[in-house]
Amino acid sequence: MNATGQGLFITLEGGEGSGKTTVMPEIAQILEERGLPYITTREPGGIRIAESIREIILNPVNTEMDARTEALLYAAARSQHLAEKVEPALAKGITVLCDRFVDSSLVYQGYARGLGIDEVLSINLFAAAGRFPDITLYMDVDPELALSRIAAGQGREINRLDLEGIEFHRKVREGYRIIAGMFPERFHTVDASGSREEVTSLMKNRLTAALKEFGL
Amino acid sequence: MNATGQGLFITLEGGEGSGKTTVMPEIAQILEERGLPYITTREPGGIRIAESIREIILNPVNTEMDARTEALLYAAARSQHLAEKVEPALAKGITVLCDRFVDSSLVYQGYARGLGIDEVLSINLFAAAGRFPDITLYMDVDPELALSRIAAGQGREINRLDLEGIEFHRKVREGYRIIAGMFPERFHTVDASGSREEVTSLMKNRLTAALKEFGL
Repeated sequence: MNATGQGLFITLEGGEGSGKTTVMPEIAQILEERGLPYITTREPGGIRIAESIREIILNPVNTEMDARTEALLYAAARSQHLAEKVEPALAKGITVLCDRFVDSSLVYQGYARGLGIDEVLSINLFAAAGRFPDITLYMDVDPELALSRIAAGQGREINRLDLEGIEFHRKVREGYRIIAGMFPERFHTVDASGSREEVTSLMKNRLTAALKEFGL
Repeated sequence: MNATGQGLFITLEGGEGSGKTTVMPEIAQILEERGLPYITTREPGGIRIAESIREIILNPVNTEMDARTEALLYAAARSQHLAEKVEPALAKGITVLCDRFVDSSLVYQGYARGLGIDEVLSINLFAAAGRFPDITLYMDVDPELALSRIAAGQGREINRLDLEGIEFHRKVREGYRIIAGMFPERFHTVDASGSREEVTSLMKNRLTAALKEFGL
């Protein structure tokens, strides 16, 4: 719990192939060991309205979709996921561990796609109704290494974003570094270039240190 | 055309039963007489993506929809309608006459529903990518009179908003008056309490005067 008696809101961030999904259950152990009740989630989180919104975004027929429309739809799905799943858990003192959140929009749409970080932040401030993560763990890795992991079949199947050129993935990394400077209090950068064991260990240590700041 | 060689963007605003839909073809004559090429539209404007978004908003199953999600979805539909229909017309020098636009969101969701005018404005500044109306004609009428017109079957069928209590409609009117103060240059309030002929005449005169400011 944080100072207000609510659960902590912890987010995982990183580019494609950074290893978020692999490391998630391992760092959840840290919460488990402390006896902290928690849930893990990722947008749209099984929320029916948010799923319907994602269907519009991902429908391959919608090639004419405007970039701003897309950003607003992501923000709309986010606000519903927050209202229905994240906020009720936090209110009950349950810690929420979420795979990607607002920083992904700032980086991918605001910076890498060029809509502007501040502009995308403004609609997400509205969408999040003031709710921002307490702790964000960012898995930093060279995009060439990350993509070679995906190509080698480590972790998961190839998705639409993996197929972007290397320049796009470099911009994503640059974007995360900008965000790190914008939110130094909550944003923790972890070197994710090592082996799975090394990265897991670094992530656990970082989360442990961050939890200490909340007296946990 | 405005100073940049684009078409003028003219919006009609007003509460339920104010008479916008009835007066639209009549004031379009003013554009016709000046030989100004124009289109009339209203959101979602037949734009496929915007129609899909509206389906989510209006689906009666979605009773759990968060107010912020709804505001973001309206903004998303708006940005797509703008990008696909309004902006291409304006760029060709075609004047666009639009039944409701951003002011409706500011008034209905920002003020009457209580999300905050400035907050709803911030997401709509993003959605509109800087595009705001050149001229807004607001049809001001006492909500009791307006609702009695609808009850008497003048104009159109009863919709979901008509069924809100009178207090809601009073808040809508209050909201429009606040907006009038925020955008005095483009916002023209017209007394819409008279007969159809009187109101049409006032609207035509006001549009004529507003067009003069653009040298038309």
